[in-house]
Amino acid sequence: MPDKVNWSQGAAWISGEIVPIADAKIGVTDWGLTHSDITYDVAQVWDGAFFRLEDYLTRFMASMDKVRISVPQTRDEIGEILHAIVARSGLRAAYAAMVASRGVPMIPGTRDPTKCANHFYAWCVPFVYVIPPDVAKRGSHLWIAKTARRIPDDSVDPTAKNYHWGDFTKGLFEAKDNGFDSVLLLDHAGNVTEGPGFNVFAVIGGTVVTPKSGVLEGITRRTVLEVCSELGVPAEVRALPVQEFMEADEVFTVTTGGGPVSVTKVDDRVFSNGAPGEMVLQIAQRYWDWHQREDLIQPVDYAGFEGQ
Amino acid sequence: MPDKVNWSQGAAWISGEIVPIADAKIGVTDWGLTHSDITYDVAQVWDGAFFRLEDYLTRFMASMDKVRISVPQTRDEIGEILHAIVARSGLRAAYAAMVASRGVPMIPGTRDPTKCANHFYAWCVPFVYVIPPDVAKRGSHLWIAKTARRIPDDSVDPTAKNYHWGDFTKGLFEAKDNGFDSVLLLDHAGNVTEGPGFNVFAVIGGTVVTPKSGVLEGITRRTVLEVCSELGVPAEVRALPVQEFMEADEVFTVTTGGGPVSVTKVDDRVFSNGAPGEMVLQIAQRYWDWHQREDLIQPVDYAGFEGQ
Repeated sequence: MPDKVNWSQGAAWISGEIVPIADAKIGVTDWGLTHSDITYDVAQVWDGAFFRLEDYLTRFMASMDKVRISVPQTRDEIGEILHAIVARSGLRAAYAAMVASRGVPMIPGTRDPTKCANHFYAWCVPFVYVIPPDVAKRGSHLWIAKTARRIPDDSVDPTAKNYHWGDFTKGLFEAKDNGFDSVLLLDHAGNVTEGPGFNVFAVIGGTVVTPKSGVLEGITRRTVLEVCSELGVPAEVRALPVQEFMEADEVFTVTTGGGPVSVTKVDDRVFSNGAPGEMVLQIAQRYWDWHQREDLIQPVDYAGFEGQ
Repeated sequence: MPDKVNWSQGAAWISGEIVPIADAKIGVTDWGLTHSDITYDVAQVWDGAFFRLEDYLTRFMASMDKVRISVPQTRDEIGEILHAIVARSGLRAAYAAMVASRGVPMIPGTRDPTKCANHFYAWCVPFVYVIPPDVAKRGSHLWIAKTARRIPDDSVDPTAKNYHWGDFTKGLFEAKDNGFDSVLLLDHAGNVTEGPGFNVFAVIGGTVVTPKSGVLEGITRRTVLEVCSELGVPAEVRALPVQEFMEADEVFTVTTGGGPVSVTKVDDRVFSNGAPGEMVLQIAQRYWDWHQREDLIQPVDYAGFEGQ
């Protein structure tokens, strides 16, 4: 009998089974939900291959260590599960999430996070553009949040990838209320940090600068720093005060969900004459070229699921 | 045919149906999970009746407004759903949660929180003691977190009840590592805020003091302030520096999950000679007496589900 299930919206691995994404659910009392006590990572599949999957796996394992969540699956098994769900979905361009949750207490009623049944699941959906392609083409317009400050590092560690998006959500509403595409948050000292799902770079006198603290150590951020090195472009990872940022020659965002994308407006300041700047176009070109590098990609083996 | 379903672990209302708690789940791509873009409240059922349910409903509706989540159910319908799930569960002492989530985008792939299908669900489980009764009896031992600071109000508003518990979780691990029962977080100015699931009070020269900022405006906190008023005990809601807190005569926590509970140790400081203090015992007595007040309780109508 032919397989009638619709896998085109994505697939998931949960409780040991591969299921269509719509059937992947977690319990309403799971602490991953009720305490946002959960860590995750998201790798990309482009043109039928994972890009830098080993780096995403390395960061995911480190995030689990940081939040003291330990799951039964090994790193290798997690990689195999990610390959399997993408193959099952048939998606050639996908956003592939790996998630580790605190779970529920092993003794009902206890409030002790050291006594919970940690668990792992994974899911993939069609490729997610953090900045939609039509917006990316003209350059995005970012709003600097006025009422929401980035959650400080000593409250929630941003380097352990997490779902604590309350500050971003508040900022996004502000941005949308003011007609902007997305938002950028400052820390409590007035330095630029990051936005919902992306790191940010400024080009200042020919040097690219990206914030050091209060941010996720993005894999795409790292790729862009490596691209800059190859291109001979000087780069700095340091505090970036908002005043200095607003006087940059060019600004761009970077994300697993779409790579480097120009920012042509921040609040009322127009950057690079309102069109994508030269630096970001040069970096983006090399970034996408690298998606053909055999040392960085892992092709997905879709055999066995073709034509379903 | 007799109902064979086991309701003793709780019941939930989700997608318009009442189901056993184990069957209540939400999708792994729901922003309530992936962005912790969700608000909630928890009422208590004691001796077969809700206590101050209208106050919990008022706060829940206010939380939804603050985070701009709007659900199809009215306040009255939410109240009816809560009564229905507790009746269905048969639980005479329960923890009853109402939850409103951002949901998923109505247009697949969009990252705009203003374009999501917000939704409501509710669940109840056997009464949850935030401080276990045996610990409450001797007085709890609290650890002041050294590495985790409370998420500031201007990052995530603590008065809109939320699942951003990363700071509490980090603090709880610290507390458990040091042999303590739970944790208390300071703000970035060194003032006492709250702990995971409870507000805190200090008794200083006969006056009870509870922090004003960086905290949930707890219903039990309010009840205790009203109890103090009735008892003629002066009370202050203000900033409470940790130094002043550590020199208090007596310390106690308050929570929907168990009421006022003595704290007999904070770090290496012993309070009220290591036994529950006079003030908290007096307040707790009146607090539990109030659970018989007809103006504050709403009995659950269990008829129709008896003996199943």
